[in-house]
Amino acid sequence: MSRTVYVNGDYLPEEEAKVSVFDRGFLFADGVYEVTSVLGGKLIDFPGHARRLARSLGELDMKMPVPEDDLLEIHRELVRANGIGDGLVYLQVTRGAADRDFAYPEHPVQTMVLFTQAKPGLADAPMARSGMKVISIEDQRWGRRDIKTVQLLYPSMGKMMAKAAGCDDAWMVEDGHVTEGTSNNAYIVKDGAIVTRQLGTEILHGITRAAVLRFAREAQMKVEERPFTIAEAQQAEEAFITSASAFVMPVVEIDGEKVGTGTPGPVARRLREIYIEESRRAGV
Amino acid sequence: MSRTVYVNGDYLPEEEAKVSVFDRGFLFADGVYEVTSVLGGKLIDFPGHARRLARSLGELDMKMPVPEDDLLEIHRELVRANGIGDGLVYLQVTRGAADRDFAYPEHPVQTMVLFTQAKPGLADAPMARSGMKVISIEDQRWGRRDIKTVQLLYPSMGKMMAKAAGCDDAWMVEDGHVTEGTSNNAYIVKDGAIVTRQLGTEILHGITRAAVLRFAREAQMKVEERPFTIAEAQQAEEAFITSASAFVMPVVEIDGEKVGTGTPGPVARRLREIYIEESRRAGV
Repeated sequence: MSRTVYVNGDYLPEEEAKVSVFDRGFLFADGVYEVTSVLGGKLIDFPGHARRLARSLGELDMKMPVPEDDLLEIHRELVRANGIGDGLVYLQVTRGAADRDFAYPEHPVQTMVLFTQAKPGLADAPMARSGMKVISIEDQRWGRRDIKTVQLLYPSMGKMMAKAAGCDDAWMVEDGHVTEGTSNNAYIVKDGAIVTRQLGTEILHGITRAAVLRFAREAQMKVEERPFTIAEAQQAEEAFITSASAFVMPVVEIDGEKVGTGTPGPVARRLREIYIEESRRAGV
Repeated sequence: MSRTVYVNGDYLPEEEAKVSVFDRGFLFADGVYEVTSVLGGKLIDFPGHARRLARSLGELDMKMPVPEDDLLEIHRELVRANGIGDGLVYLQVTRGAADRDFAYPEHPVQTMVLFTQAKPGLADAPMARSGMKVISIEDQRWGRRDIKTVQLLYPSMGKMMAKAAGCDDAWMVEDGHVTEGTSNNAYIVKDGAIVTRQLGTEILHGITRAAVLRFAREAQMKVEERPFTIAEAQQAEEAFITSASAFVMPVVEIDGEKVGTGTPGPVARRLREIYIEESRRAGV
């Protein structure tokens, strides 16, 4: 069955969901995106994603294409139309179609596209029990990773490097320190404290990261926001990642070295439980 | 009148020239491009662009979508259909449409799009007589600038920063040295020698760069391939850029400082003449 996809005001069968070849999202990667998880038909952390979308657009001199309430309605309509229980809603906004020019068009007509991906059992991923294996790679991305742009070729290459090495993902390293995973934030647990890189232009300001750190602090866990190295991560008690679609996912091996016992640890497991429980409760 | 645009085997009116919203060029900037100039209806340096396209694709584990001869025929058909005397042919190849996943699809069906832009009098641009003004900005692009990907958001932002400063373009600086312009290679003339950064992953391997350096050497000019700073450029005898669509274009001001006399210099002027003359002769 064909999915229903949203393109600039229309709900279309996916075969008809198209954008102009002159769209600046296609020609210049001049666009930003968000991915919102759906659990039991409810949107997880929607206000956080809407807020970050507005920030990404603002950093690129673009506007929110529709008010947040309308955006929520479009998300809900796609979840309904596609019968999504567990899954994702992907949203992309670009500066729109214009004759090709590095300079922005004077009167841009933005493009907005949304589609869903069904992921039955999203909260019960087997990987949460086995843990992920990651490799480290050099971080070759552009400098403004705090803006969630569609310039995703290098993370995509990193994912392929990980697959080629028999692993699940890659952690990127810059100036000797881990920035983040290909599409997730990276954490270690050391002396009982949760350590993750501080916010800055070097990493995405994860919506799940913010929620998980909030829950951790509420649960009286110690949180240190600072850079760490691969060697430090390999010697840590635990390692894990967070993202909108993986929630909290344990990392059990880094560059072939077991982390801790080589199995998912209690901190990651506990944070995953709390995050999913709270998310289900607060979903809209 | 609507242009004729090529999309995956079809010649279409531009209003109908579309790609799937699932195209990885749109979702991941997972695509590469070339721009070939047209002078007097003839394609300039076509074999060089075809060769670089193949290299860019190869670096990303993609294949040439059609043989070079067919690519040439598509270029010629678009030039004919759109009555291009002077102008450009833009070509983009992506990994094609697939359900969204950072990992490459196992059986990609690549997308190929070509369109033209008419630029009457391309070889007689007034800027060749007045010269360009540039600003310097930090180079925030990804690490593999030798692959001609559509990850062009930062160069686009750089162009806007230049416009906001009342200038024509931006030269990007990394670790204290100029890499290149937003869509062109950068040069200075010092003690009579032409200085431009050596090839590497830091810059695009300009097709026009290669031709201009060849002509310069044939004309017994001295060429030094090495990095230079903004301060060195401001104190140089001349500065200029090269690109497929600007050919050789003098730079007369950098960050508000006049270069040399503040007018186009003899080396840039001579190289521009030679390049355009030779290109017209060798065009196909």
